[in-house]
Order: sequence, then structure tokens, then C-alpha cells
Amino acid sequence: MEDVLIRVVEKVELKDPILVEGLPGVGNVGKLAADYLKEKLGAKPLATIFSKFFPPQVYVSEEGLIRLVSNDLAYRKAQRAGERDLLILGGDYQGITPEGQYELTHRVLEFCAGLGVREVFTLAGFAQGHVVEHPRVLGAATSAARVEAMKKFGVVFSRDDPGGGLIGASGLFLGLGRTFEMEGVCLMGETSGYFVDPRSAEAVLKVLTQALGVRVDFTDLESKAREIDRIAQKIHEAEQKPSEMPREQSREDLGYIG
Amino acid sequence: MEDVLIRVVEKVELKDPILVEGLPGVGNVGKLAADYLKEKLGAKPLATIFSKFFPPQVYVSEEGLIRLVSNDLAYRKAQRAGERDLLILGGDYQGITPEGQYELTHRVLEFCAGLGVREVFTLAGFAQGHVVEHPRVLGAATSAARVEAMKKFGVVFSRDDPGGGLIGASGLFLGLGRTFEMEGVCLMGETSGYFVDPRSAEAVLKVLTQALGVRVDFTDLESKAREIDRIAQKIHEAEQKPSEMPREQSREDLGYIG
Amino acid sequence: MEDVLIRVVEKVELKDPILVEGLPGVGNVGKLAADYLKEKLGAKPLATIFSKFFPPQVYVSEEGLIRLVSNDLAYRKAQRAGERDLLILGGDYQGITPEGQYELTHRVLEFCAGLGVREVFTLAGFAQGHVVEHPRVLGAATSAARVEAMKKFGVVFSRDDPGGGLIGASGLFLGLGRTFEMEGVCLMGETSGYFVDPRSAEAVLKVLTQALGVRVDFTDLESKAREIDRIAQKIHEAEQKPSEMPREQSREDLGYIG
Amino acid sequence: MEDVLIRVVEKVELKDPILVEGLPGVGNVGKLAADYLKEKLGAKPLATIFSKFFPPQVYVSEEGLIRLVSNDLAYRKAQRAGERDLLILGGDYQGITPEGQYELTHRVLEFCAGLGVREVFTLAGFAQGHVVEHPRVLGAATSAARVEAMKKFGVVFSRDDPGGGLIGASGLFLGLGRTFEMEGVCLMGETSGYFVDPRSAEAVLKVLTQALGVRVDFTDLESKAREIDRIAQKIHEAEQKPSEMPREQSREDLGYIG
Repeated sequence: MEDVLIRVVEKVELKDPILVEGLPGVGNVGKLAADYLKEKLGAKPLATIFSKFFPPQVYVSEEGLIRLVSNDLAYRKAQRAGERDLLILGGDYQGITPEGQYELTHRVLEFCAGLGVREVFTLAGFAQGHVVEHPRVLGAATSAARVEAMKKFGVVFSRDDPGGGLIGASGLFLGLGRTFEMEGVCLMGETSGYFVDPRSAEAVLKVLTQALGVRVDFTDLESKAREIDRIAQKIHEAEQKPSEMPREQSREDLGYIG
Repeated sequence: MEDVLIRVVEKVELKDPILVEGLPGVGNVGKLAADYLKEKLGAKPLATIFSKFFPPQVYVSEEGLIRLVSNDLAYRKAQRAGERDLLILGGDYQGITPEGQYELTHRVLEFCAGLGVREVFTLAGFAQGHVVEHPRVLGAATSAARVEAMKKFGVVFSRDDPGGGLIGASGLFLGLGRTFEMEGVCLMGETSGYFVDPRSAEAVLKVLTQALGVRVDFTDLESKAREIDRIAQKIHEAEQKPSEMPREQSREDLGYIG
Repeated sequence: MEDVLIRVVEKVELKDPILVEGLPGVGNVGKLAADYLKEKLGAKPLATIFSKFFPPQVYVSEEGLIRLVSNDLAYRKAQRAGERDLLILGGDYQGITPEGQYELTHRVLEFCAGLGVREVFTLAGFAQGHVVEHPRVLGAATSAARVEAMKKFGVVFSRDDPGGGLIGASGLFLGLGRTFEMEGVCLMGETSGYFVDPRSAEAVLKVLTQALGVRVDFTDLESKAREIDRIAQKIHEAEQKPSEMPREQSREDLGYIG
Repeated sequence: MEDVLIRVVEKVELKDPILVEGLPGVGNVGKLAADYLKEKLGAKPLATIFSKFFPPQVYVSEEGLIRLVSNDLAYRKAQRAGERDLLILGGDYQGITPEGQYELTHRVLEFCAGLGVREVFTLAGFAQGHVVEHPRVLGAATSAARVEAMKKFGVVFSRDDPGGGLIGASGLFLGLGRTFEMEGVCLMGETSGYFVDPRSAEAVLKVLTQALGVRVDFTDLESKAREIDRIAQKIHEAEQKPSEMPREQSREDLGYIG
């Protein structure tokens, strides 16, 4: 089989589109943000991506229907002056081997280059190892001009973070994107790294939507964040009085299947 | 070498055949069911499948003859009204890497598509983690129509199971089958997950034979199930009086080489 | 690079040659036997085999010269009536991944088929888990005729051994050899599995040389076996009086770099 | 994507150039030496090498700019009689799988062969497992003539070291280099193997620069070595009085990110 199989759902002509990538990762921040953006902007399916670099797995819906694990590209055309056509990449998994990461990223970039993409935003979480009440958004970019542009939206370019660089799709889409003459920015929401973090995703999206010039209602994401807070609070209380509550069970509610 | 090498044993023309897949897995339910069906229907060898995605291993028969590990396709032509031509896939192993799973499944589906297959049944076990006296058959399918059709045969489409989806050949044959325009159903027999389970295989086969409109005598499978029961009972007793019986040894009789 | 790179050292015409395979493995029995046969028959280099399926390693000789790890084919022409032309495959490693095992074996078989090989002997050790004073030679073959032929040389075809089949090159050369219309026999010398075992290699070679109709002087192999015996004996004594001898150090003398 | 992607930065004509390889490894000796040589000789970028055999990672500079992990070739033209054109290979990683090591090395050698390279020096560390005050430079080579030539520069060709051969790029560039008709030498600086070792790199470079007939100022490398000595000394003192100093923290200063 083809290593990466891209099935086009709808053929569309896009005008100088921007690619937004948000795949599962630290705190699921990137995926939460991309999925929320897709939903709120009403982006439509453009292509489904299957690959032998994903696990050999299908999901089963509540109705008993199977779906092969995939990544997915959705598009949303500009709807008024100041907006740009958007491509949003989300999905179930990143490639599960280093080679798979490269092959997948390269193939998707190649496909997006064919659609006219020359600019990329990648979304991710940045694990701080402790609870972060007010997550900052850290940045990395392909050019000094983009660094300066992003600072205006409050993005922090820190001398120390991320020290060891970025591992995974969010870095690779920028790094390999350079070989396709694409420019781009990675936005990393600070997060504990211990559970799925809608608050960090919101921080990232607030920067992104400003940069893209689109408006999004954050109510649903905020209520998701409060829900996580409540569960975390319960766990905290339970840890004070361990005998009164089934701790393991409620911990699961914080799991990455947000 | 070719990644997947399909050696045709007999060239046959089949009419709208149904593919039944049953490879080793949880409780060996799928393999037991497919092998039993093949034997009782007198299916004949159609092709042998070798691959670098299997272990580098040969089996040696009691007569000292070697046989390279493989998967195998057998066929059985419809013998009366209401029946369909069948292809039955069994074998020694699933692919031993995720990439190998994809490559093998894709290549076999491609070959079967060339034989006219547009419909697939996959057989598997579903591990419940405890002994199941009366195993239900859980289902997953590629379309709502098939879900409804299977419910009539008593297949359970549960909201909760399988929660995390299906991993391995039984899911992948359906998921990748969609890219070949194939429709299908996965039948999962409940099982403990601790030993080879002919009773669960029988439950699966009872649904499958109804769906296929073929008749099969279950006597041999039932006696195999009783044999496993007896061994399990002995182990249980031995665990009550640990000193009287070599426990480890009899546990081996429940091993996956059923 | 080519996955498997075969560098021909000398172009020779062989007449219906037999391939003898002996690569590192259990007790190094196969490698010891093949190397000894090559030396005693004065076989000459025919081809060197490099591959990315070997470790990325060079050996350094006492003179400081590097040599990339490889497998090697040597040949020896029949020298009198009753003999056959021989190809002997030895080397530093088997393929280090399952896929590598398949690719290497297939490529070497393809090359040997081009040289006219239709018959293969593979040499290996069979680990018994305890010291074997008088190692038997167990067998496995591709046809009943060959089983019978080998029994005449004292080869044991046991109902129980090898129970789980053969893993690695010695099995694969026969299993994949079938896809090249080659017939063959695997000769397995019983060994403890704990150290390099020239005595087991001798038992294997005695059968092989009879089957091939060649004569070999076993003196050197026997003295190597006695040397191993002496070291094993010393270790045994040391284990009785642990304080008198540096046990770890002498154990190294039994290591697989025989 | 191409397995190994070589992006040429500047097209240059070189005359019978010598390749010097120094990638990360034991004590980072090879990388330290190659990077220092590149800097002091003012070598210029010739090509950047990306590959799916590297980790899927980007580094982020203090200015917030990303850079995909890579290997890099720099060149330096001969500047007076007795010198030769040089190619220097450095980078962030060796290939992270055995197969990747082979593919990367082969592709880079192929590229360098196209630039006229017929001679290779590889630089590495040799772990002794204890602190080495005055590191010797051990050698391995592709021909007896080169062994003799290197002995004149004080290189030690020891009967015992390296006993098990060389694993990784420094050996492979010589081993695979033979298949490109290249000759070469590996220079290994003795080092403890516990931390990054500029002193060992200096020892290696002193031999190499003599062999190449180039002059290099070692002041900066020596001050780096003294800095490492100071840190090591502090750790040693701290280990005498464990309570007075945060040991773990200062140990980090010896890390391989030299």
C-alpha cells in the first residue's frame, strides 16, 4: 500500500490558504485547539489521511460503526476582508515511529503545497511539570519577522524554553515545511503535562485567532476547562481524605480522551 | 523479496464471494472459528501467503517436514440456493509490526478484491478479564444496515464495548476494506482472555453460519470446549489444594496452541 | 543503498552445487561447523555480502585493519567421483530484525539459485538447557525422501523436538528455499545452549560430510572441544571453591567469540 | 520523502578532497573535534542533510528560530602547498537505527564520491571506563600503508583495543567507504566515556592536523578542557562533602550538550 494514503473528500480551490496543525500530544493542547477551531468555524472535510504509520486500529462508534484511525484535513474559506482561506489538520494520532513522523509530515506538506499553502501554524502543549494557573503561550518560528509579529499577540519567545527543542509533528511541520519554502510559527500553550488541558488550548487559540483575524466564541472551551477544574479539585480533596472517594476512577475523567 | 508473497495454489473463478477472516488473537477465538469452518465445509486451498512481516520461523511436523509460517486462503463454492461462494483466511500469525499489519491486510484485500470480494466477516475474541459462562457475540460494522441485520442474529452492539476500538487484523480488514469499497462486519466472541476458548468460537460461528446460510455440525467444537472446561476445573481444584498437583504443567494445556 | 549488497570476488561456473549454511546462533554450532568445513576443504572466496540488516559495525584486526561485518560465500569444486560442487555460507551475523532475516535469506537464495543451487544443508545448534555429553543430531527436511535418507546417517527426527519450530536463518533458508524450488535438510546438533560447542559442531559435521561424500580431518575440532571441556571443568571446580579463582574471567573464555 | 535529503548550499569544485567525519558519540570527541576544526579553518557550508533516520525534532535558538536536526557538510579549499581541499561532516545526530546508519552513511559517501573524495578520516572517542589524564589516540585503517603512516604521528594500533570493533558512523564510513574505493583512517581519542571530553578531542585533532598538514590554534579547546576539569573537580569535592553542594545540578554541566 502507499505509505500515506490521502483520500480527497471534496475538491476545492483555495486562495493562498494557511495550514493550522493540531494533533494529539502534550496535554492534548494542539488537538483540542484545532478541533475547537474546526468546529466553531464550521470547517468542512477536504481529505482523510490513512497510513501504515498509525496503529492498526479502528474506532467503533456508539452505533456500532467502525472508523479506521486517520488524520483529517478540513477547509474554511475566507468570509470577509482580512481573513484567509484555512486548512485545519487534526486526527487520532501522530506517526508512531520517528520515520513515520517524517513520512507523514512530508506527504501532508506536499499535498498542502499543491493546494497553495505557504504558511503554517502548529499548535502544541508545553509541559511545565506543575499546574499552570495562567498559561502563557510560548513560540518558535521560521523567521525573525514572524517572531516579532507574534510578540505583538503576547507570545513569549523565551531564551530557555523549549530548551531541548520540539519533538513531534508541531516542530516537524515547520522544519520540513522549510524544504517546501513554507514559513511558519509554533504556538505552545503551557500546561502541567499531567492531564488534558482546555485552558491551555484556549490560550493558544486566543493568539491564533488574533493572528488569523477570525473570531471564535470560547464559551464551550471555557466550560470544558471548568469541568476539568472541578474534577481536579475533587481529586485534590480526595487525596486529602483518601478513604472517602474512589480516586483512580475519577482520575480517569482527566484522561487524554477529552 | 516482495513484502507479501501470495502463491496461488489453485486458480478458481468465484461468484461474488464473501471473505471470512480468522487469525490468531485474543483467546484464539477468530482462528479457532475460521479453522473449524474451513474443515467442516471442506474448503480447499486457494493461496498461501508468505511475508517478511511474519516471524522468520518454520514449523516442523511430527514426520520431520518443515513448513514456513504463513497465512492461507481457502475457498468453498456455494452448494445450494441461499449460499454464497466463500473465501476463508486463516494462518499462523498476524503481522508482527504495525506497519506489517497494514501491508499484509492491504495486500490480501487487494488480492481478494481481484477475486470479486465486496463483503467481509472478521472473527475475533473480546477479552472481558473474567470467565464468561455464556459468551455473547459483540459486533461492529461498516454500515447501519449491517448493524441492524446482525442484531437479528443476536449480535450485541454495545455502547461501551469495545470502548477503545479494535486493534489488529479484524478491525483493519474492515477499515482498509472500506478503501476497496468493501462492506463488512466484525464478530467478537466474549472470552476471559486467559486461555484458548472454543466455546466463544462456537458462539461466533453460530452467528456467522446463520448469516452465511450454511449449516455446520458443532459436535467437535463442543467436545473441545468441554475438554478445556475439564482442564480449567482441574486447575481450579489444584489451586484449592496447591500441593497435590503440578499446577504450572496443567496450565500449559490451556495454552494458545489449541 | 541496496538492502543487501553482494560483491562477487571471483566469477566461477559451478555444476549443480549444494549450499551449506552455517551462521552464528545457538552454541555457535552452525558457524563453527561451516567455518571448519570451509577451512578443511580449502574453499575459496566467491562473494561478500554486506547489508543494512547487519549491525553498523566494523571489526579491527590485530594489525589495525578494519573489516565491515558481512556474510561470505565460499566455493569448493568437486575433486573426485561422488563429490558435488559446494557453496559454503558463513559470516558474522544473521539479520538483526525479522524483516532483515527474510530479506537477507531471500537475496542470498536468489543469488545461489543463479549459481545453480537446488539443494541446501543448514547447520544449527539445538539448545537442550543442560550439558549434553554425546550430542545427537536432530533433523528437519523439506521432503519425506530426505527424512529417510538422513536417518541412514543417524539423524534423529523426533516427534517432540524441535517443538516450536525453528527460528532464524537455518529454518528460513529451507522455508524460503521452497519458493525457489530448492530442497533441503537442517541438521541441528544438541548443545547446552550456554556456551560455544565444538563437540556439537563435530557431530553435525560428521553427518554432513557423510551426506556430501567428502572426507575431513576432525583433529583440530576435537582439540578445540577438549579445550572448552578443560575450561568448563575449571569453572565447575571454581564454583565448588568460589574463593580460589576469578570465576567471571574464565567464564569469558567460553564466550561466543570462539 | 527521500530517505536522505541532501540540500546543496553552495556548488563548489573541489580538487581531490579529503572527508573528515565527526558526529556525536562517546564523549562527543568526534563532534567536538570536527566542529572545532571547521570553526578554526573557517570552513563554509556546502550541504545540509535531513533524514527520516534522525529524530523528528527541531531545535529552537535563543531568538526563537527553529532549525530541523541535520548533518552538515562544510568545505575548505587548500590555501598553500602541502594542504588538500577538505570536506568536514558534522551534525546533531547519527542515524537512530542500524538501518538508518547504513542508509545515511551510504548516501553521504555517494554524494562525497561525486565530489571526488577518495580518502576519509573519521574521528571518535574510545571509552576506557576511567578518567584518562593523557589520552592516547588509537587507530584503525583500511590498509597497512595507512597504519604505518599514522604510527609516525603517534597513533597507537593496539592488539587489544578496540576489541569488539567499532560501532556507528566512524567505523561505517570506513567500512562502506571501501565499496566506493575510498581509503581511510579512524582516529579514536581515549576518554572516560562519562562526560564530554575536549582534551581527548584535542589529542585527536593534533594528530589529524599533522596528517592533513594544516595548522590550528588549540587555545580555545584547551580552555574548554580546563573548564570541564574545574567542574569535574568541584563534583569530586562535593562527593567528599555531599551536604554542601547540589551535586546533581553541577553534574549537568558535564552533559553532552557541550
